[in-house]
Amino acid sequence: MTAFADRLVDAVRRTGSPLCVGLDPFPDKIPALFGDARHDARALQNFGAEIIDIAAKYAAVLKPQLGLFEPYGPEGVAAALELTALARTKGMMVILDAKRGDIGTTAEGYARATLGAAPGFDADCVTVNPYMGKDTLEPFLAIAEAQNKGVCVLVRTSNPGAGDLQDLDVNGSPLWKRTAEMIAPITSRLKGQSGWSGLMIVAGATYPQEARVLRQTLPDALFLVPGYGAQGAAAADAVAGFVPGKHGREGGVVSSSRAITYPPAAQNAATLADWRLTIREAIAASVAELQSACAQ
Amino acid sequence: MTAFADRLVDAVRRTGSPLCVGLDPFPDKIPALFGDARHDARALQNFGAEIIDIAAKYAAVLKPQLGLFEPYGPEGVAAALELTALARTKGMMVILDAKRGDIGTTAEGYARATLGAAPGFDADCVTVNPYMGKDTLEPFLAIAEAQNKGVCVLVRTSNPGAGDLQDLDVNGSPLWKRTAEMIAPITSRLKGQSGWSGLMIVAGATYPQEARVLRQTLPDALFLVPGYGAQGAAAADAVAGFVPGKHGREGGVVSSSRAITYPPAAQNAATLADWRLTIREAIAASVAELQSACAQ
Repeated sequence: MTAFADRLVDAVRRTGSPLCVGLDPFPDKIPALFGDARHDARALQNFGAEIIDIAAKYAAVLKPQLGLFEPYGPEGVAAALELTALARTKGMMVILDAKRGDIGTTAEGYARATLGAAPGFDADCVTVNPYMGKDTLEPFLAIAEAQNKGVCVLVRTSNPGAGDLQDLDVNGSPLWKRTAEMIAPITSRLKGQSGWSGLMIVAGATYPQEARVLRQTLPDALFLVPGYGAQGAAAADAVAGFVPGKHGREGGVVSSSRAITYPPAAQNAATLADWRLTIREAIAASVAELQSACAQ
Repeated sequence: MTAFADRLVDAVRRTGSPLCVGLDPFPDKIPALFGDARHDARALQNFGAEIIDIAAKYAAVLKPQLGLFEPYGPEGVAAALELTALARTKGMMVILDAKRGDIGTTAEGYARATLGAAPGFDADCVTVNPYMGKDTLEPFLAIAEAQNKGVCVLVRTSNPGAGDLQDLDVNGSPLWKRTAEMIAPITSRLKGQSGWSGLMIVAGATYPQEARVLRQTLPDALFLVPGYGAQGAAAADAVAGFVPGKHGREGGVVSSSRAITYPPAAQNAATLADWRLTIREAIAASVAELQSACAQ
């Protein structure tokens, strides 16, 4: 089986699309066409299946936001599991946005539960929080190596308060850079033949200058870039940490969720056909914008 | 309904026991008496129900480790849900060790999914990772306020590699102290009539000097102290961050898991009665040791 990093890079090159479709099931935003999302996890599943059906034609990667499935209890988790499997059946890769973080056997439990080594999720990659240190990462790396999967570490997140801890000055460098330096010696663990590593990092689109610094610290890590679209970052900022390749700028995927899964016109779509058309147009427009930014 | 902090402090005073029983279902350690824990989530549930039955007589608080239930898929999550409900039925308080962390609506999703505001877990408190900043904490605090629940922030964890990030020097103070300082202005949000706040922090027993510093920074935060027992810290170290009260030293709970739920003699117990006796003795011995440390 091919290394996760190679599969991701190949898929992005093949589709020409660095878009990662964020699947964030907001109960208040899912149209009534799909059921009562406030009370019924089946509405999430109906909505997610339709998004995946369209997304698979335009994007290589899906990112389900697990925190929005879990409030539905085990039925919500089961819906997320089935949508993860569905996306992979349709040829997409899945980065499960679970932001897990623990140590030892517990971290191993989360890794097994998300990366296909147990009856839980069989995602291609899972997001992980580094606050507990390298102990957190090791069990995820070990399972990822065994399963040919990836691990994506929160380094520089895109939220307004990200700097509360991440910007603190550690002997002249911000904490986010120190976190990247902690990871630098171990990206080789998940490196593929493409030269890219499946030890990904989150590098928010809202901080393009910092993405360039992170690229210097981590030349081979694939970036997962949130913050593009509804969170306000432009396409050019989103790909600031990408580097020139044969097929244009590359080095990760750019995530968008609200802008492409809940465009205003889709909220009031009278029919499923109308909704599909609106979603298709929104996704296609984001792909075109990112492609253009990568061609610069 | 009484504030979470008051309920916790009252329960610890009433039982005279600052022990928090960690429920960590390790598939290799659960005796065959309870079923095949390697493949069947029902074995976790059988084991957990028996632990709770004994623990409820000796301890006020249960801490299920969610990362060890999730590899069983939705059935594992359902087992954790039922055990959480069972513990509360038996009068215990539950700190769900989920180490969640995200922002905005996703953090709100995790908070609702764990603190009884949705069909997920109805725990009394949930552990949260602060790396993404105050944005992470706000939605948890809001749900905790509305539900009279608690939030427990990872500040100084007990693992060997905890210092990789937490010890980094930020203008003369380690990051763990800066994290505590970030929390200090908001502990009042979950403060009870006892004067203690339900905005708890994790302060590892393996670093008693640091627990004393954290107590100065956060005089009213209840501590969740891991690292006592199998991880090597002595009872006196575990209560280093507690302060003198009318009933002895107080200010939190001390967690133990492997030493009391998998004592060596229990592994080979021939009958359920033998196993129960061994577990009861192990829990009672830990309670006595912690009580003695709190009386000093």
